[in-house]
Amino acid sequence: MTKDVPALVFDVFGTLVDWRGSIRAMLADFFQPRGISHDWERFALDWRALYQPSMQAVREGARDYVDLDHLHRENLEVLLDRYGISGLTAQEVGQVNLMWHRLEPWPDSAPGLRRLARRHILASLSNGNIALMVDLARHGDLRWDAILGADLARNYKPVPAVYLTAAAALGRAPQGCMMVAAHNDDLRAARALGFQTAFIPRPDEYGAAEGRDLTAEEPWDYVAGDLCDLARQLGL
Amino acid sequence: MTKDVPALVFDVFGTLVDWRGSIRAMLADFFQPRGISHDWERFALDWRALYQPSMQAVREGARDYVDLDHLHRENLEVLLDRYGISGLTAQEVGQVNLMWHRLEPWPDSAPGLRRLARRHILASLSNGNIALMVDLARHGDLRWDAILGADLARNYKPVPAVYLTAAAALGRAPQGCMMVAAHNDDLRAARALGFQTAFIPRPDEYGAAEGRDLTAEEPWDYVAGDLCDLARQLGL
Repeated sequence: MTKDVPALVFDVFGTLVDWRGSIRAMLADFFQPRGISHDWERFALDWRALYQPSMQAVREGARDYVDLDHLHRENLEVLLDRYGISGLTAQEVGQVNLMWHRLEPWPDSAPGLRRLARRHILASLSNGNIALMVDLARHGDLRWDAILGADLARNYKPVPAVYLTAAAALGRAPQGCMMVAAHNDDLRAARALGFQTAFIPRPDEYGAAEGRDLTAEEPWDYVAGDLCDLARQLGL
Repeated sequence: MTKDVPALVFDVFGTLVDWRGSIRAMLADFFQPRGISHDWERFALDWRALYQPSMQAVREGARDYVDLDHLHRENLEVLLDRYGISGLTAQEVGQVNLMWHRLEPWPDSAPGLRRLARRHILASLSNGNIALMVDLARHGDLRWDAILGADLARNYKPVPAVYLTAAAALGRAPQGCMMVAAHNDDLRAARALGFQTAFIPRPDEYGAAEGRDLTAEEPWDYVAGDLCDLARQLGL
C-alpha cells in the first residue's frame, strides 16, 4: 500500500454508527415483552452521557485500564437503578450491555468505507474495545484493515497516546494519518498531534433535542456530507 | 457473531505465507541489477534463523518491546555484514527490510480464510507488527476481523501473555479460541493455556534441506492438509 496517501483512522460511535436510534430500538424490543416501558430514547441518551465521565479515571491514571464493555456495564447498572428497573438476571443485564455490539451503521458507512479502501488503509480509532469493534464490523459490514484505539493504547481518547499508538501501529508519522470524525473535539486532539483531519457532521447523532457538533468549528482539512462525499473529495 | 464456534487465531509466517520463497525471489530481484550475487535462499534462511534469538531479550524482559520490523532491520544489518555486502544506502536497507511486508501467501490461504470467515471470527496472532500484517493482508488478500499478536501484547510468542491478550481482546476465554499454526511449538504453548488447536503442516516452509514440523507431534484437535481442508473438517 502506498504511503503517498494518508491512512484513514475513524471514530466509530456517532461517526459510523447510530448508537442513539439503535439502542433505543433494542431497548424497546427487549423490555416491551417484559412489561417494562420507559422513554428509551432518554435511556439511550442517559447511558451515553455516562460514557465520557466513566473514562475519566482511566485517563487520569486513577484507575487501571478497563475496556468499554466493562464501563458500559457499570453505567448500565447505575441507570437500571435510577430508572427503578429491577429483577433482571445477570445474564439479561449482559444481553442489554451487548446491544452496543449491534449498532446500525449510517447508510453511507459501509459503501463509503469500501470505496475509500480502494486507495487508503482504513483503521478504526475508537474508544470501543476490539471485541465490540469486531462485532460492529460484522454487523454493519464495516471494512477495516486494522482495529486500533483504546485496547491497543490501554487508554481513552482524547489522551494523546491513543492517537500516537495508532499511527505508530500503522508504521506512520501522525502526518501520514487522517482522523475522520463527527466530533470537533476528536479532530482537535488529533490535529494537535499532527494528524490530518476530516469532519463528517452527523446531525442525527443526538437527535433533535440536543444537537451537537452540527458544524465544523475549525478549518478542518476536509468537511464532507458523508463518507461517499469524502471519497469523492479525495478523488475516489 | 455467535460464540458457539471458536474464534480462529492464526500464525502467519510459514502458516499462511511463504517467507522463504518470497524473500529469496525479492533478494535476487533487488541485488541482481546491483551486480551482487549470493545464495539468496541461504540468506533468507539465515535471516529467519536470527528471528527467534532476536526476540528473546524482549521475552525475558531484558529489553523493552520493539516491533518485528525493528528486529528484522537489526538482523539484516548483521547479515549484510556477514555476507560482505556494503554500500547500500539507509533507504535501500529499509527497502530490503520491507520485503517481509510483501510475502506471497500459500495458494489456499486467501480462499481458505474467506471460507472460514463465513462462520468464524478470524484474527492473526503473529509475532509480526500491525503495519506488517496490514501490508501482508493487502498484498495477499488475507481477510481478518482483527490483527492481534505481538503489538497488542507488546511481547512475543510463545510468552503466554501474547495468546491471552488475544483471547481477551476477542472477549473470549482461551477455550473459545482455536490456534491455527504450522508449528507444533506454537500449538503447544496455546494448548497449555486452554486454546483449541489446528495443525496445518507446511512442508515447504523451510525447503528440502531442513524440513521441520513435518508432522503433528501431538494429538491436536484438528490436523488439516490446508485451510480449505480445515474448513471442510469444520463443516464449512
